[in-house]
Amino acid sequence: MLTGIQVALIGGDARQLEVIRKFSELDASVQLIGFDNLKYAFNGITKSTLNVEILRGMDAIILPPVGTDDKGYVESIFSTNELILTEEHIAALPKYAKVYTGMAKDYLKDICSVQGIELIELFARDDVAIFNSIPTAEGALMMAIQNTDFTIHGSQCMVLGLGRIGMTLARTLQALGAHIKMGVLKPEQFARAWEMGFEPFYTTELSHQVTNIDLLFNTIPSMIVTAQIIANIPNRALIIDLASKPGGTDFRFAEKRGIKAMLAPGLPGIVAPRTAGLIIAKTLSELLMDQLKTRGNEQ
Amino acid sequence: MLTGIQVALIGGDARQLEVIRKFSELDASVQLIGFDNLKYAFNGITKSTLNVEILRGMDAIILPPVGTDDKGYVESIFSTNELILTEEHIAALPKYAKVYTGMAKDYLKDICSVQGIELIELFARDDVAIFNSIPTAEGALMMAIQNTDFTIHGSQCMVLGLGRIGMTLARTLQALGAHIKMGVLKPEQFARAWEMGFEPFYTTELSHQVTNIDLLFNTIPSMIVTAQIIANIPNRALIIDLASKPGGTDFRFAEKRGIKAMLAPGLPGIVAPRTAGLIIAKTLSELLMDQLKTRGNEQ
Repeated sequence: MLTGIQVALIGGDARQLEVIRKFSELDASVQLIGFDNLKYAFNGITKSTLNVEILRGMDAIILPPVGTDDKGYVESIFSTNELILTEEHIAALPKYAKVYTGMAKDYLKDICSVQGIELIELFARDDVAIFNSIPTAEGALMMAIQNTDFTIHGSQCMVLGLGRIGMTLARTLQALGAHIKMGVLKPEQFARAWEMGFEPFYTTELSHQVTNIDLLFNTIPSMIVTAQIIANIPNRALIIDLASKPGGTDFRFAEKRGIKAMLAPGLPGIVAPRTAGLIIAKTLSELLMDQLKTRGNEQ
Repeated sequence: MLTGIQVALIGGDARQLEVIRKFSELDASVQLIGFDNLKYAFNGITKSTLNVEILRGMDAIILPPVGTDDKGYVESIFSTNELILTEEHIAALPKYAKVYTGMAKDYLKDICSVQGIELIELFARDDVAIFNSIPTAEGALMMAIQNTDFTIHGSQCMVLGLGRIGMTLARTLQALGAHIKMGVLKPEQFARAWEMGFEPFYTTELSHQVTNIDLLFNTIPSMIVTAQIIANIPNRALIIDLASKPGGTDFRFAEKRGIKAMLAPGLPGIVAPRTAGLIIAKTLSELLMDQLKTRGNEQ
């Protein structure tokens, strides 16, 4: 249970509904800030505006998965009022308080660090990234089915990167009956890809490997699908880039060559906000329980 | 090879392009009727309008997957001219000629039967139905991912009917990590569903079984998801009906109860026209080769 913990949720999208529901179940005291238009009523939940006073006693601030922008603006689909998180707000928090978000921009990192408040990025955690790889893979499937005139079954797929997303996606495509070429960076990934029944190759060989593919999924967050690679890809192929913005594909050259290429970051929140919300809610409540225990020990 | 065979393709959609390509490869003599706007050039292929003279020496007529409508109208995305197939056209064919289509309406069955011309419905063949179940399952996946806010992984799915589509679809959903309840009609289907790791039940128990499902896929072509069943389905659930028109769901009652229900027949031609075309092309060329052999033996 989270009885006695004080949490402020500032802004967010449909995913935060699952967080609110979970916190309410666990008996946390929750202030919703930037949720004026939210209709649901939850146990132990009150609403307020963003101000310094309200933050004084908080154990934690929960920001949306995308955190703030470069100037402190926090998005909320539940409010038409502007939410700007400033250093003043962070300064109002007790020193044991923590700020949780998905991924943080430098702005947020800076104001937390200056004020000595711990900032926790959920999406940097391996467990969260693996859980999120499930809706990401399903979103990628959806895009592939929508944007091709052939089935995934029997197609020649290439996945670049046997990381947290790459493994889930390649397994999923394989389960649908695709042939999988897996581009890896390290010998241990080569061995794992081989064990899993994929056809592994080192990405240094990429330009020779792409000549017969139907679908290319990139998960490597650096420029890897370059103009030189794209020149070797057959015209029928579709490129889906799942690496975080700006992706690892030369989109301009792909367009010039008439090869369809799509950047698709943030799929979990788009294709499965409820599941994505449950992943965040589960992780956050575990972290807050740990925080509550530590606080108890220190007192 | 199909050297020496005379075939007329009358109308169609993108799928027929694969048929034309395959016939051209196999050296058949092909007349395209209702393809005035088609830009591709193929070896051994000529174009003409629909008239009695052109059909006199034909070994086969290939109609689009949907055949004709109730009045003989044949659809063609490659022509703006109207194509009406009449009994006169069928009468012009040699008696050994055959008419191929996907599924035939009574109109087409009647004019062929009166003229003693064999009519072959490809989609009635088990092999074609099984091959087509692959794009159908992928299309159903796409719809499920698009129209829910949760992942298929971890969801409670129900598939009604362990037929040609039901088996493919249930396996695919299971491979994505869903829990599968399989509604069956016969003991041997119950045993097979059990062997495949699904949770089988008889459809007579349907109303008790639907109370906790997230996704319901129907493949049984008779009214099975009735108002009484829908009354027991949770509100979050999505119904996708893959049975041929009009499906097996009481769509009016589903709408009234606020449960999303979608009829999705003909998915292969929509989500994967190239694969669907290849399936038709492969089957047709095998059937025409058999026809050529038989004709050879009779001469």
